[in-house]
Amino acid sequence: MTKKPEIVLVGTGAVGSFYTGKLAQAGASVSFVCRSDFEEVQKNGVFIKSVLGDYSFRPKEVVRAISDYSGTPDYIIVATKVLPEINVPSLIAEKVDKNTTIVLLQNGINIEPPIMSAFPDNEIISGLAFICVSRESFGCIDHQDYGRLVLGTYPTGKSPRAEELAALFNSVDVKCETNEDIITARWKKLVWNAPFNPMSVLAGGATTREMMNSPETLKLVQNVMKEVLALAEKTGNPIDSTFIDAMIEDTSKMTPYKTSMLLDYEGKRAMEVEAILGNAVRLAAEKKLPVPHLESLYGLLTLIDRKNIENIAD
Amino acid sequence: MTKKPEIVLVGTGAVGSFYTGKLAQAGASVSFVCRSDFEEVQKNGVFIKSVLGDYSFRPKEVVRAISDYSGTPDYIIVATKVLPEINVPSLIAEKVDKNTTIVLLQNGINIEPPIMSAFPDNEIISGLAFICVSRESFGCIDHQDYGRLVLGTYPTGKSPRAEELAALFNSVDVKCETNEDIITARWKKLVWNAPFNPMSVLAGGATTREMMNSPETLKLVQNVMKEVLALAEKTGNPIDSTFIDAMIEDTSKMTPYKTSMLLDYEGKRAMEVEAILGNAVRLAAEKKLPVPHLESLYGLLTLIDRKNIENIAD
Repeated sequence: MTKKPEIVLVGTGAVGSFYTGKLAQAGASVSFVCRSDFEEVQKNGVFIKSVLGDYSFRPKEVVRAISDYSGTPDYIIVATKVLPEINVPSLIAEKVDKNTTIVLLQNGINIEPPIMSAFPDNEIISGLAFICVSRESFGCIDHQDYGRLVLGTYPTGKSPRAEELAALFNSVDVKCETNEDIITARWKKLVWNAPFNPMSVLAGGATTREMMNSPETLKLVQNVMKEVLALAEKTGNPIDSTFIDAMIEDTSKMTPYKTSMLLDYEGKRAMEVEAILGNAVRLAAEKKLPVPHLESLYGLLTLIDRKNIENIAD
Repeated sequence: MTKKPEIVLVGTGAVGSFYTGKLAQAGASVSFVCRSDFEEVQKNGVFIKSVLGDYSFRPKEVVRAISDYSGTPDYIIVATKVLPEINVPSLIAEKVDKNTTIVLLQNGINIEPPIMSAFPDNEIISGLAFICVSRESFGCIDHQDYGRLVLGTYPTGKSPRAEELAALFNSVDVKCETNEDIITARWKKLVWNAPFNPMSVLAGGATTREMMNSPETLKLVQNVMKEVLALAEKTGNPIDSTFIDAMIEDTSKMTPYKTSMLLDYEGKRAMEVEAILGNAVRLAAEKKLPVPHLESLYGLLTLIDRKNIENIAD
């Protein structure tokens, strides 16, 4: 690496702070666009309690809006939640230079097209984080487990930028692989997320173990997974059917834990209903593929999410 | 009516206490088999706060088990919840005489066959209560709204006993009709119960109005209703498809209210998961009819119910 890459993070929650913190540790120049956490991060930087070892760092610049950032970023890493009310293009547009790579560290399916249509000439890297991490308070991140990252040039292929990021991550013990078919990788992640995230909320705050141990509930998990596989295939991203058994097997070995959606629900934060379920349900409708189990979860989750957010005003 | 009918109530919750109280008011001799509420009811009788006018009454006998009842009942009215752990035949067997009519004032579908096989020579009347009523405390019932009752000789037809009960109810302003096809009437009630009861719990404590006002949720309501209709038809009890629109229309006019299942959930009481959903899902499997929306609700409700009951021990 000849030049320190200039990186700007938009969405300074747990995932974004953790991974950009590791990039800073690897020598990158990292700046933060903060919102609610501006004052704490500007004053104290970011502290990351991590199973990989605690560390802290100070972003090069801490700004309230990307327009206040003084440089020209090589990478804009977007780690906001995927919510209808968050317009990512408008959050980053002012600093998207012709050489800027936009990296999406976000959940869900079919989240790249709006970014690609807003910035058709920029490289987009789509990323999947497999990690248990939460924000304890502004500027203070708790990394409990896992941490693997998968990065892929969108829609397909290899790129020097993806390789550069992966090398940086691996240099600081974050296991990061590049994947030439990131869309299929995203579908594979949805195979797990689509059942377990919504169901953990709808079943009254259930852990993965509780869902696995209830036969009727496990059957629903599997039926949702089958619909995701059918939908992935319909969209040209087939996944081998043995993948479901492998996911179930892996999950049965996991320490029982609360999904990220359940943590959001319990924290009275908006859940990524549209990114995880809504986009899939709409794609299925376009493709005329029946997905009744996904639609059932979607019909319930939209309402519980709305009620949960409304309760904030109580 | 030449002779006062002798009636024994098993299941002295809100529904049973209300309706047998009205029968006492109409001149019947009513005795109670009490469990947790034995002492209060024996001491003070039953007080019913009702939109039809408050009233109180003392059961002729208050016993802890039906074997302690001194007479031979003309009617045993069963108004327990329908739960796998409640074995109705064993609760009533000792006083089921050859002339005893067994009346089931209970929710759900396909609940009569176990009673019929235990007492093949007795008349069974299956009843549906359309009422908002709750038990405020032992011996104290609050009747808030509605109250219509539908009674039918099981499996089909007319009977003097059903007519006698209906006449008693109507004499004290409880609107009671007899129905010669009570199985279809039960399916019709399930058309409403199968979506709204479970979904009110799963969507985080939603009122009927909240479910109606969320388009994705209303779509799920309608899809569940369609599956119930398809299943009713498969079992030989066809319901006109316009019935769904009528139910939706009626519900949109109702004062927003919490379903009985939601009240049970909030009260940490067992929900009638098997009577409302489990029996339907099993019937569908027998008939090889796909009911993915019902199965989705069932897969979630079994777990949330189990967790809710376990929490009682907290």
